[in-house]
Amino acid sequence: MDQPAGASAYQVQDFSRLVNPRAVAVVGASNDLSRIGGQPLKLLTEFGYQGKVYPVNPKYPEIKGLTCYKDIASVPKPCDVALVALSSNHVLSVIEQCGATGIPFAIVLSAGFSEVGGDGIALQQQLIETAKRSGVRLIGPNCLGMLNLHDNARIGFGGTVQLKTLIPGPCAMITQSGGFGFGVVATAAYYGVGFNYAISTGNEADISMLELAEFFLERSENDSVMMFMEGVTDGQRLISLGQRALELGKPVFVWKVGNTDVGRQAAASHTARMTASYELFQTAFRHGGFVEVRDMDDLIDVMKVFRARRVPKGNRVGVVTLSGGAGVLLADRCIEHGLELSKFTEATTGKLRELVVSYASVANPVDATANGYNDAFASYNKVIAAVIADPNIDQVIARSPRGTAAPAWSKVFAETVRETTKPVVINWPTSPDDNPDVMQFLEQNGIPCILSPGRTVRALASLNEFSRKTSAYAARPRQTAQRAVIKQKIDLPSGSGTLGEHRSKQALATYGIPVVREALMSANDVAKLADAPLPFPLAVKIESPDIPHKTEAGVVRLNVRSLDELKSVARELVAAAKKHNANARIDGVSIQEMASGLEVIAGVVNDRFFGPVVVFGLGGVYTELLKDVTRRFAPFDVAAAKEMIGEIKGAALLKGFRGQPALDTEALAIALSRLSLLAVDHADRIAEIDINPLFVRPAGQGVVAADALVVLK
Amino acid sequence: MDQPAGASAYQVQDFSRLVNPRAVAVVGASNDLSRIGGQPLKLLTEFGYQGKVYPVNPKYPEIKGLTCYKDIASVPKPCDVALVALSSNHVLSVIEQCGATGIPFAIVLSAGFSEVGGDGIALQQQLIETAKRSGVRLIGPNCLGMLNLHDNARIGFGGTVQLKTLIPGPCAMITQSGGFGFGVVATAAYYGVGFNYAISTGNEADISMLELAEFFLERSENDSVMMFMEGVTDGQRLISLGQRALELGKPVFVWKVGNTDVGRQAAASHTARMTASYELFQTAFRHGGFVEVRDMDDLIDVMKVFRARRVPKGNRVGVVTLSGGAGVLLADRCIEHGLELSKFTEATTGKLRELVVSYASVANPVDATANGYNDAFASYNKVIAAVIADPNIDQVIARSPRGTAAPAWSKVFAETVRETTKPVVINWPTSPDDNPDVMQFLEQNGIPCILSPGRTVRALASLNEFSRKTSAYAARPRQTAQRAVIKQKIDLPSGSGTLGEHRSKQALATYGIPVVREALMSANDVAKLADAPLPFPLAVKIESPDIPHKTEAGVVRLNVRSLDELKSVARELVAAAKKHNANARIDGVSIQEMASGLEVIAGVVNDRFFGPVVVFGLGGVYTELLKDVTRRFAPFDVAAAKEMIGEIKGAALLKGFRGQPALDTEALAIALSRLSLLAVDHADRIAEIDINPLFVRPAGQGVVAADALVVLK
Repeated sequence: MDQPAGASAYQVQDFSRLVNPRAVAVVGASNDLSRIGGQPLKLLTEFGYQGKVYPVNPKYPEIKGLTCYKDIASVPKPCDVALVALSSNHVLSVIEQCGATGIPFAIVLSAGFSEVGGDGIALQQQLIETAKRSGVRLIGPNCLGMLNLHDNARIGFGGTVQLKTLIPGPCAMITQSGGFGFGVVATAAYYGVGFNYAISTGNEADISMLELAEFFLERSENDSVMMFMEGVTDGQRLISLGQRALELGKPVFVWKVGNTDVGRQAAASHTARMTASYELFQTAFRHGGFVEVRDMDDLIDVMKVFRARRVPKGNRVGVVTLSGGAGVLLADRCIEHGLELSKFTEATTGKLRELVVSYASVANPVDATANGYNDAFASYNKVIAAVIADPNIDQVIARSPRGTAAPAWSKVFAETVRETTKPVVINWPTSPDDNPDVMQFLEQNGIPCILSPGRTVRALASLNEFSRKTSAYAARPRQTAQRAVIKQKIDLPSGSGTLGEHRSKQALATYGIPVVREALMSANDVAKLADAPLPFPLAVKIESPDIPHKTEAGVVRLNVRSLDELKSVARELVAAAKKHNANARIDGVSIQEMASGLEVIAGVVNDRFFGPVVVFGLGGVYTELLKDVTRRFAPFDVAAAKEMIGEIKGAALLKGFRGQPALDTEALAIALSRLSLLAVDHADRIAEIDINPLFVRPAGQGVVAADALVVLK
Repeated sequence: MDQPAGASAYQVQDFSRLVNPRAVAVVGASNDLSRIGGQPLKLLTEFGYQGKVYPVNPKYPEIKGLTCYKDIASVPKPCDVALVALSSNHVLSVIEQCGATGIPFAIVLSAGFSEVGGDGIALQQQLIETAKRSGVRLIGPNCLGMLNLHDNARIGFGGTVQLKTLIPGPCAMITQSGGFGFGVVATAAYYGVGFNYAISTGNEADISMLELAEFFLERSENDSVMMFMEGVTDGQRLISLGQRALELGKPVFVWKVGNTDVGRQAAASHTARMTASYELFQTAFRHGGFVEVRDMDDLIDVMKVFRARRVPKGNRVGVVTLSGGAGVLLADRCIEHGLELSKFTEATTGKLRELVVSYASVANPVDATANGYNDAFASYNKVIAAVIADPNIDQVIARSPRGTAAPAWSKVFAETVRETTKPVVINWPTSPDDNPDVMQFLEQNGIPCILSPGRTVRALASLNEFSRKTSAYAARPRQTAQRAVIKQKIDLPSGSGTLGEHRSKQALATYGIPVVREALMSANDVAKLADAPLPFPLAVKIESPDIPHKTEAGVVRLNVRSLDELKSVARELVAAAKKHNANARIDGVSIQEMASGLEVIAGVVNDRFFGPVVVFGLGGVYTELLKDVTRRFAPFDVAAAKEMIGEIKGAALLKGFRGQPALDTEALAIALSRLSLLAVDHADRIAEIDINPLFVRPAGQGVVAADALVVLK
């Protein structure tokens, strides 16, 4: 149930032949190996690629000792990929020829498509149609190509792809910025972190970042996927990818840019891609198997820590150092990142006491002091081992020792770590050139070494968050939960515009969301009333589909306490409505019971990329100012709604703050879940829903919507 | 006026002879050069130290070719520093001998003092007294000593101090954790960032971190100071240091740990130092010439950027890249950090158009595209130059090019940068091993190269924040502003405890802070009233010094609307007060006008380390939950109070949110400034003040305190 509709349709394309082709035709091959049509020939012949390489260019009989073919039709079979390095006006016919001769994939490096605007947009549209018609799947255009370091197939161009320092590793990168992404591959290699694959997707005329991510995530040689993303338009697919990542226990590292107005404008000029708001991406990241990274170091660090493939059972960390300052710092950062420095057992504390000098600190964080140096770290290693073994500890951060005794220590330490399944992370105390062999040895033995204390904790916190999400996902019932309410027919007028308050509330009520009692009648009927239709005090409002913001329009009056007052208020409000908008259709006067409780707001935005998302927060100006809201993609069940309620900072108010009674969060969760069902069931028609305020009463007394607005598409 | 009392007493000690002694006596010298008493001999003879070295040990005639002296009295004159590497029980007599023979400074490496607790605490006290009596100033005990890389004087022990890779640079580090701090020096050297000095202060029995920071900040060879700090007890002195840093335009980089409960406990066990709350440190950092860093990379990056000694005139940044992804990312981060990506002039835009391919982006951030590579970056350099020259731009971030043409480019680029005074920062696109000579050349030419995009922006943002603070400081009138109110006598009972509401408000009123009108009378007198003493509606409260939290005790009633109600309420409240606390002294019934307006809270905490600090925030539970408060050290003037009001997230509410009238922030600022004066004038007696709520009325109508509580020391 807590599953977007897209997930059931999860299908993974097979791109094996694309990423590891038996042969590559280089169309537009050049005998100048520094040129865009020449570089790939160098890359495909000098880096150990095992497949065949077929230059295509009628001008030459051979290039670099390779037979050069006059056209694509002449290229021997099988050939899985055509690398296209021609000017844009020649690309369409090449794709057609690929289709005709049975080359299933093309990587189009050529620029001059949608990214240049104007005619380029039309040309890209033609390219898409040509590809579809020809049965050829495309990477690009306007991309840097692909690095397959797993099979030594470098099929692209540019400076970084030619670096000899690049190394493979169990991750696949898909990048919407080839220049930046390939630079990341180069930088990561410097820190010993490799990528099996890196694909620059360019304009994504055909094959998208998400399709590739889905494919790579399933491959056994990858234990993670990384996306450098300016935006995706298929939000539902992103959500599904995140769920699959949780299912597989493989993280998708995601580095999203274009998150501010300025960044977004720059992104649009870069790939002409519209981007949903960053908040929605973050919602997707938070609920799926994503690990968001925000800078180069973040990425290196989390990749190192995840690469060890150890899963913490809980968030309790033991910290072991040779210097108090480092311990204090690591402790601070752990707490800030939601990790717990739990107390050691008495047995551990006793053991530690025996291992260190009297004035060392044997509490968590342990400060073994510089005396740890005295026995070439023999006792220091025992200290770490004792902390690892403590049943109150789920994972350990240790500062590695320095100096000439460190290499010998590292051998013993690697043994110690091999004997546990708990994550153990080294915070490297100085620079990478201080005992670099020790660092390399430790990392080769699955012990990540992170360079700064803060970064060490941040990376470990990411691992903990991912592990929390995968456990929660695994614990969730596999059966689709019973819907709180089945799909209801609701009465929506055709066309766009807003529903008036009365009809908006009826829609909510149809889905079982409580609304205040109300009577809708004409102004004339109000004037004739002998008795109030509901007990006083009352709220009185003008009902009109043309006045969505009633308070601002002055057509709301609260706390009406008598029949006379009711009648005069009704007259005044009708006058005010006409003054506000002479053409407003007035459906009558709505007389409502006054509700009370804690004000919250609940709403729906039906995003064009992500579909309906429910937004929840406390009501009132403070919340608006302080932006204390949370979001979740619809639909979701009551359990998920309860999580959602706990996510806002103001949640304490609902739980009975400062001696107030606890409020009815149960009813609130039910209402939110029902709202999410209403939103998906009628996503084809409903653009937005706003319940403001929704009053939450003391526990057992429910919630009630005092005002609502449905906006149609 | 916006100046703590301490600032006027700013006096800097001269530690020249300590940090660059003419001779060092190594007391407890060992002929085993790996031992704590041997290492300094190696360090002082093998690293180019120009002064004399006098080993002191009666056991040996000479060590390492140096004459060894039998006692301190025998050491030749002049000798400026005694390095003490003896067990703790011998330290006191050594200090006495130093005094007797005229050695003015001692660096005590020995452990076994307050850090071990018990007898160690008493021993440290004796050490302090001995030093004072002998006229010897001390570093330590329990420290790693000092690194003077400016004059090659390494006077200490440990692994890192022996590294040949350490380099000098125009910064002095003072560290409360020797092991960690010296590791930072080693790491920074790897990234090309040097320190002239690093001193491990250990237990700070005598010379404190702040004294040393004051000294180093004045020295012309340092353009900054760095402190790795677990805590300082002299908060006023920290504040003064920050002001001096602003005055000199030299930053004090501060890395503070021990900020969470767990971290603080660990810090206490490390150096047995009590620590004020982190919020107060942050307040000091924010208002003084401090740059807070939180991790190794932060420090490296800000030191690189500040080292260029260029001051941005404003916060407008031009971003220039060869890859759209990087531009988008840098743009995002700039916005997040409060930097503006301003629009280029039309002239610049026109020039850029001529320099790049048609589909490049010439808006800010500029994406010159990979075509920038085609002419060996000649046009790319012109693009950067055009952006630097734009009058709408205060500083530039450029991504440096890669590859074989980069070295030639860097020469031209350095010329370009030399011609401007605007800060120019390079975001290095890949790893440090990709064209390392180019990076070194650029950095030697004052162009910082930062490794990750996010880090690049963060460091530049720190520079901007510092420059904003120094400009604001320079613009502030040098004359002490007129106090809003001169020191008033207020009537405070002797002894600790709380003042009742009535007397608390009288204290406020004495300082010109408006309070609600009220009448205090006995319950009997209320019963006899013929007329209400103030117009209805009224608030009625029990006045008692023993019931500080009246609402919780049930002794407050609001909105009392008639004389009868007033009388019965008075009776009920007296009963409630007796029920709450049978022994409470009841000073009467307080009858008060009902006030209204926006609720804010204003208070004072008289911190034992920092002195009185004024706290301000919006009232109500939301604020308490969401912790939207700001702090400022007392006293401060009305201008500073206005800044303070603008610092809270909820400030928009005061300025007229959603069509509400603007509120009287002028009167609010005056009240806050007056509160700060009250707090400092009576800091010897007042521990806390709480005004809650303070009502802020529409502009021109002032503020009024509806309740107040003064707590005495």
